[in-house]
Amino acid sequence: MYRKEIKVIDCTVRDGGLMNKWQFDNKFVRHVYNALADAGVDYMEIGYLSSKSAFDSKEFGPWRFCFEKDLKKIIGDSEKKIKLSAMADIGRIDYDDIPPRSESSLDMIRVACYVHQVDTAIDLAHHCIDKGYETTINLMAVSTVGPRELNEALEDLNKSRVPIIYLVDSFGAFYSEDIDTLTAKYHERLPEKTIGAHFHNNQQLAFANTISGIINNINYLDATLYGIGRGAGNCPLELLLSFLKNPKFKTRPLLECIESEIFPWAQKIDWGYSVPYMITGTMNQHPRSAMAVMESEKKEQIVEFYDTICNTVDTI
Amino acid sequence: MYRKEIKVIDCTVRDGGLMNKWQFDNKFVRHVYNALADAGVDYMEIGYLSSKSAFDSKEFGPWRFCFEKDLKKIIGDSEKKIKLSAMADIGRIDYDDIPPRSESSLDMIRVACYVHQVDTAIDLAHHCIDKGYETTINLMAVSTVGPRELNEALEDLNKSRVPIIYLVDSFGAFYSEDIDTLTAKYHERLPEKTIGAHFHNNQQLAFANTISGIINNINYLDATLYGIGRGAGNCPLELLLSFLKNPKFKTRPLLECIESEIFPWAQKIDWGYSVPYMITGTMNQHPRSAMAVMESEKKEQIVEFYDTICNTVDTI
Repeated sequence: MYRKEIKVIDCTVRDGGLMNKWQFDNKFVRHVYNALADAGVDYMEIGYLSSKSAFDSKEFGPWRFCFEKDLKKIIGDSEKKIKLSAMADIGRIDYDDIPPRSESSLDMIRVACYVHQVDTAIDLAHHCIDKGYETTINLMAVSTVGPRELNEALEDLNKSRVPIIYLVDSFGAFYSEDIDTLTAKYHERLPEKTIGAHFHNNQQLAFANTISGIINNINYLDATLYGIGRGAGNCPLELLLSFLKNPKFKTRPLLECIESEIFPWAQKIDWGYSVPYMITGTMNQHPRSAMAVMESEKKEQIVEFYDTICNTVDTI
Repeated sequence: MYRKEIKVIDCTVRDGGLMNKWQFDNKFVRHVYNALADAGVDYMEIGYLSSKSAFDSKEFGPWRFCFEKDLKKIIGDSEKKIKLSAMADIGRIDYDDIPPRSESSLDMIRVACYVHQVDTAIDLAHHCIDKGYETTINLMAVSTVGPRELNEALEDLNKSRVPIIYLVDSFGAFYSEDIDTLTAKYHERLPEKTIGAHFHNNQQLAFANTISGIINNINYLDATLYGIGRGAGNCPLELLLSFLKNPKFKTRPLLECIESEIFPWAQKIDWGYSVPYMITGTMNQHPRSAMAVMESEKKEQIVEFYDTICNTVDTI
């Protein structure tokens, strides 16, 4: 038995690109695009939407920008096979640089924001709605937001025209009990909205918490191939599709893409469960200190890292 | 708030030894022993209890047998710091080779069995109880057992004198919903017994399912350092202790032991999430085919493996 309202959003290129400055070649992105379409995935989040002026295109690959000319190179001349999404970061995209949907290959724009940016995010999302896009707001780092502030943000989001609001566990700090509590609050405060889930794997709980989200009536589910993503990574798409019952979902095309495209990257860049990510996750900290140690020669000196983080937390 | 009935059993040496034929040196085992004691872990499962005749001691290390002389080398002359457990496999230990508890450093003997061996397991466990040991029966591969057969086994276990019965997810096939359903059945059919949990990580759910077990009033919890264990491995002990609220539990000694003892093994042997283990897990199969492919040159040829398993399942 499956719930037809469930939509799966693959973030392989957008979230995985955080690790290599979006330096995926077109063969990689095209392979992911075809595999997701064959697997029945609902959306491919192909990158970030940024203005040319926000980043140096010599340093950052095309999926930091999502220009239409680059999207066309992936889709080719035939009909688009899967809905495309891009994530917009507050302050990195000028409104004028967002084309109307009729002139874009993108279907959905997801606005990521911290709680203090909610009003700015709603403004940007409304602008995208008015240009014809599907939109979501992905409220990040909720594990650090107090109840008064969260209620106020949810009240603003409830009054907005944005139809889909994401619960995001930026630090990989949540247990299933947090998902239960927060989804109850989101449903209560956002009775007309669809809720989405984006969870990180610091405590090996990204997939499990996504299942808890499904049980709690979350219907937009983020995942990536083999969990690729910054730090501990994300909910693995191959696990999620194996769990979901809708017969339209196929696992085999994903495995084929993992074998050809993801395994070679796994030789070059590290992601997935490691003790430093677990430490920042359990302490509800941004993973930046863990990422720094994992890129250093001290990646296995986990006791020193633990002591540093404990001392930092204690002196706040 | 913590539940004082919760006991944590570390299986690092016993379960990790499945991967290297228990060839851990005494320095390793002593370090694990001290770390677990310092961390407040309740039991250390130090190996399997086997008769000398069951295995060749030239091929298998001391923790395949758990002879008293070897236990003494770990404990030394001072008082034992943590309760010790050994696992007994049906048919590999002669009753006469089990010393009375008064002459042994072991406190607990856990009998692992498949459903068709329940009566034999109860007989062995009763023998251990009569010799003074704490005992458990760990009913393996429950994901493959039908309801009629399971009910019959639980009825026999309920009538036995064995106080602790384990729910074991041998194939890493369970979702949290399975834990909910099965623990409800175990509690209903075994109203006087304590329930234990031993879960595998094929779908990155060993820790999450252990949390589900805790929520469902499971009180004996198995884990290993850094998840070490055959195939996809186990619930990582460092994650479990970080989750549990009892202030007696300390994470730092575990990290120190992982850094010194487990990381060097991680260079030599593979465990943890990999697509072949996920495939056998989602298909509720023994991981032996996945272990074989992971030890071969075809470890990254996951599509071929997937097709083989699908064909096998379809032709059963």
